[in-house]
This record gives sequence, C-alpha cells and structure tokens, in this order.
Amino acid sequence: MQESVPGIVIGRLPIYLRALAILEQEGREVTSSQELGKRLGISSAQIRKDLSHFGEFGKQGTGYRISFLQGKLKEILHLNQNWPIALIGFGDLGHALVQYNGFPQKGFYIQAVFDNDPEKVGKSTINGMIIQHPSELAETIRREGVKIAILAVPAGVAQKLAETLVKAGIRALLNYAPITLSLPPDVQVQNIDPVVHLQQMTYYL
Amino acid sequence: MQESVPGIVIGRLPIYLRALAILEQEGREVTSSQELGKRLGISSAQIRKDLSHFGEFGKQGTGYRISFLQGKLKEILHLNQNWPIALIGFGDLGHALVQYNGFPQKGFYIQAVFDNDPEKVGKSTINGMIIQHPSELAETIRREGVKIAILAVPAGVAQKLAETLVKAGIRALLNYAPITLSLPPDVQVQNIDPVVHLQQMTYYL
Repeated sequence: MQESVPGIVIGRLPIYLRALAILEQEGREVTSSQELGKRLGISSAQIRKDLSHFGEFGKQGTGYRISFLQGKLKEILHLNQNWPIALIGFGDLGHALVQYNGFPQKGFYIQAVFDNDPEKVGKSTINGMIIQHPSELAETIRREGVKIAILAVPAGVAQKLAETLVKAGIRALLNYAPITLSLPPDVQVQNIDPVVHLQQMTYYL
Repeated sequence: MQESVPGIVIGRLPIYLRALAILEQEGREVTSSQELGKRLGISSAQIRKDLSHFGEFGKQGTGYRISFLQGKLKEILHLNQNWPIALIGFGDLGHALVQYNGFPQKGFYIQAVFDNDPEKVGKSTINGMIIQHPSELAETIRREGVKIAILAVPAGVAQKLAETLVKAGIRALLNYAPITLSLPPDVQVQNIDPVVHLQQMTYYL
C-alpha cells in the first residue's frame, strides 16, 4: 500500500483507466503519456509523474502497453474484484442508477435497494430486486458485507441515513443528496450535485 | 471581472453557497469561516482566502451575514439570473433530470429536450416539453440563446453531439457521457461519471 499517494493523484487514475478503455475499443494496443495527455487535457509530465508513484509501467520511447497499464491501474484501485453496492432512495434518480449498465460493466453491482415509500417497499425493480424498507438497512448491509452505498435521497434525510450506513459498515458513500455530509474521516465520500457543477461554469459565462 | 481567480477557488464557491442555503433554512442569520469550514471539511483560513479574492464580506469578530454573502456569491457566479438549458438525451437519466426540482430552485431551467429515438420525438415530457430531434438542435439553441447544455447520451455519440452544440453557441457543457470530451479551451466542461467517483474510493477500501 502506498499510503502517501496524494488523493488528487488517485482521483486521476480512473480518468486514465477510462481513456485506456476507449483506446482499447478503438483497437489500439500501445499508447503514450503524450497521447493520453492530449486526449485528457493533462500534461504528459503529469501523467508520467502520477504513474511513477506506483512503479514503471512503460519504456522510454515505446510507450505503454494498454492492456498491461489497464491491469495495473485496476490492481491499484482494487478493481480486479466485483463490488456490491446498496442504493438508498428509489425515486427517478434511483431508477436511472439501477438501470445504468455502466456500473456492472465496471464491476459495480447494485445488490440492495431501499426506499421508505410504503407504495414501493416489497415491490420489485425492473431487474428483479425487492425494494426494502430502510429499517432493514443495517442487517442487509452487514449480512451481505456491502462496503459501498449510493445515497439518492432528499437533503433533509441524507445525514441521518449516512450515519446509519456508516454504523452498518459502509466505508464509501456516493452522495447525490445536495448537502455536504459530516462523517468520520476514514469514510470515503464523493458528492454528485449537478447544480454545483452548473454553478462552477456560470462564472465563466 | 477577476480573470485571475484560480478555477479551484471558483469551484468551491457553489459549495459555500449550498452551505449558506442550509444555514438559512435552519433560521440562521450570521455565520463564520470557522463554522462553514467545520461543516464543509475545509479550513477556515482557506475559506477566508477564497473569499478575499472578491472583496471584504465579513467583519473581524462578527462573521458573515448569511443573506449578504449569498447575494455576493450569486453575483460573482452570475446566478442572479435564470439560465435556460438544453438537455440532450431523454433516457432514464434524462427523465430524472427533467423532473429534478433542484434545477429550477437554483434558477436553471431545462427548456429544450432532444432525443434521436423516433418513438420519443414529438412526444411530450411530464412537464410539457416536446421532445425534439437532434437535427433541430442548432436552430433551437440559436433561437433561444441557450448557453448551457446537459449531455446525457451514450459515449459513442457524445463527442460529435458536443461539437454540434458548441457550433450552435453552447459555452458550458455538463457531460454525463462516460468519455472525456475534446473541445475548444474556452468551452466550460464539467463531467459527471458515477463510475469514476466509485473508482476514486475503492483504492481506500
């Protein structure tokens, strides 16, 4: 484990992985830090520096073998295994997430779905999961050994649900609720709030 | 215009704005960089430094008036106006986005929806918009003066559609397609890819 690798470097590795997957789809076998950099808008020096935290992945002058580099990045990011996921909230967004095939393609499987709407509890999702009441959260997560949850609920209930999830054993939370969660520092949190992204662009308009 | 403010500072302003809205909902009138920092996991010094790019917003020892600081941040981010948005792609995600009330609450209005599925073109969304064919993109965007688009289409068609959008006058793109778009540097792009966010966390699990 390279505990000292900065978070911002880790954050770029999935972007590299995504670019490598696209190159592979294009039938390519070898690439370079220059080519990756050009596609991603990142300097080639930055890419080489990021990768150097983890070893030597390419030869000077011959570039990177795409499949080899993909394998290494997946190993580093712990992606050579499947990850079960609990989805909390089955509104419009929850529906979209359950049907998003980008998740299983990359080894992420939504395995349990929770919603507190009595009209939904006990019903089945389009891919056959039974929607559970949040009161079953802790037990299901412990039993299934789930470490990752996606929070797709209104802001008002997000903090409390997040705390319940962490208590039940969740170590990584993808938060769609428009609120900054306050959780122990060893819990990973990533936030997706489209409004924040839009507001980060209007400054420049 | 403060052209020299780093992008990373601009990126934090919407986060401050969101925290201020929550404080306001809680009935609060005044806050401090310490309190904001604690809620957001950012140092109070960082918050003061970020805000100092734009002037003096609080008094030493008395903190910030929440409504005043909100007004200033909205002014800086050009949020004291409504922004029309074009949505490209009306699959599950498109459905969720059209119904997401976080957008109109913050002044973002999806005003045109496009999809190339003949089954969808000409039909109406739940809130009464007629789904248009992408061949109408350029004309609609020019006529309505739309500057912001949300791209919710498969990776394979995203780059070409993005180029069409930019040619038609789009200056800011919120991209949900799992691909890094290659566009002129003066076009703002923000990417939302939940897989990338998940992969940024599995390293730590």
